[in-house]
Amino acid sequence: MELVASNKCFGGEQKQYSHTSSSLNCDMRFSIFLPPQAEEGKVPVLYWLSGLTCTDENFVQKAGAQRYAAEAGIAIVCPDTSPRGEDVADDAEGAYDFGLGAGFYVNATQAPWNKHYHMYDYITQELPALINAEFPVDVERQSISGHSMGGHGALTIALKNPQQYKSVSAFAPIVSPINCPWGQKALGGYLGNNENAWFEYDTCELVKNAPVKLPMLVDQGDADQFLEEQLQTQRLVDACDQAGYSAEINMREGYDHSYFFIASYIESHIEFHRKFLFS
Amino acid sequence: MELVASNKCFGGEQKQYSHTSSSLNCDMRFSIFLPPQAEEGKVPVLYWLSGLTCTDENFVQKAGAQRYAAEAGIAIVCPDTSPRGEDVADDAEGAYDFGLGAGFYVNATQAPWNKHYHMYDYITQELPALINAEFPVDVERQSISGHSMGGHGALTIALKNPQQYKSVSAFAPIVSPINCPWGQKALGGYLGNNENAWFEYDTCELVKNAPVKLPMLVDQGDADQFLEEQLQTQRLVDACDQAGYSAEINMREGYDHSYFFIASYIESHIEFHRKFLFS
Repeated sequence: MELVASNKCFGGEQKQYSHTSSSLNCDMRFSIFLPPQAEEGKVPVLYWLSGLTCTDENFVQKAGAQRYAAEAGIAIVCPDTSPRGEDVADDAEGAYDFGLGAGFYVNATQAPWNKHYHMYDYITQELPALINAEFPVDVERQSISGHSMGGHGALTIALKNPQQYKSVSAFAPIVSPINCPWGQKALGGYLGNNENAWFEYDTCELVKNAPVKLPMLVDQGDADQFLEEQLQTQRLVDACDQAGYSAEINMREGYDHSYFFIASYIESHIEFHRKFLFS
Repeated sequence: MELVASNKCFGGEQKQYSHTSSSLNCDMRFSIFLPPQAEEGKVPVLYWLSGLTCTDENFVQKAGAQRYAAEAGIAIVCPDTSPRGEDVADDAEGAYDFGLGAGFYVNATQAPWNKHYHMYDYITQELPALINAEFPVDVERQSISGHSMGGHGALTIALKNPQQYKSVSAFAPIVSPINCPWGQKALGGYLGNNENAWFEYDTCELVKNAPVKLPMLVDQGDADQFLEEQLQTQRLVDACDQAGYSAEINMREGYDHSYFFIASYIESHIEFHRKFLFS
């Protein structure tokens, strides 16, 4: 693990590292914010999964989360959104919604994607093992959040691994990839035509049979340009209603898909996770 | 004036516009944050001047100031850092510290720079006139702040126009361009070898004879990689001491030159300006 950058921020430290990932078969970068409280002992940790086209840096630079994480005493880990490197396959036409920057947090089964695209394993196993070994974080107190494709990642990962997280939240998540163009392209490419495999990565499907109803918070802007075609938040509202899953799902008037929306509500998400990380 | 982008943010609106500048003789962009209070009447306005290599967007995306501006009811205007466009002269070697992205907030007198590089007039006259005409801001309540080269801009502009601003602040400003490599290159290029002209744009020189001692706040990180050679904060401390100018100048342990530093202390700067904008 190699330190790439380090900046003092709100009394804590915003750091970026590179490391060689065995699950992704390439070198990866991640960012971690360590609050001031980490100097005195282990702190709980929030994983943040970013959306299409992002790296580990977008949330770090644009969300303004460090202020609230420093107050709450929570570390924030931001992984990249796909495997990276010259030999990592990319969309044939360089599209923004598949391949590099668009790993969708799944384990690809189809060639050539299955050589590197194992973001599910990376996020659920390899990265937490590294973080827990190298930083003063409490392995028993993890939560997860994300935006758009990363909201999909956070929700599916938490629903499939409720023992691993205390709570889950998302901004403008893709809630049913099996039912939207972004998701159909990604799941078809990474998993092939076997739609049973797709169900394993669909929040609305997973909610139906969730063995544990982990605390869940979702915020969605009603001026989001992707709401109708890609995000389809109402599907999650309906799935939760039908499953008796009491998630908090808020529609926010006038907000769009940008980090200005995330910045406006990240305090309430940190506050939400804090309740469960410190209970 | 043309709207380029608009995003709801902390209940207010973060907007970007383009317009044709007569003082700069080219098309320019600027960003403005309008707090929710602007829907009900005129609000005071803070001008933010960015540093080398920046555009109007860096502060908007990275400082997290909107939260505090929304609470305080203050608009924030972020201009670009130089004239722009294909026919605008740039440093012969494309250096980051002269030419495009490095206007130093002066009126250039030397060819070819004097064709476009009149950032001083743009910031002190043309842009405020446009803002006051087009947005619900109170022309009687303006303050100014900035970072690095923009801190130099804010301090010199406020010291030369104390009637125009209620207060001035800066993060990691160049306090004496006549005494540092960045400043000597810029002032020599834009103003030529007449060093008397340079004094007009040197904060430490201007402090000596300030007719009005405008409230001034400066924050400087002691881990700033540019502190010793370029910023030389101690010169401002000494100049203020000698002039009996009671500025608040804080050294912040462990902070560097990045926006992570600005984000960490921008709340205290908004709070500082608020006192004078609402008194």
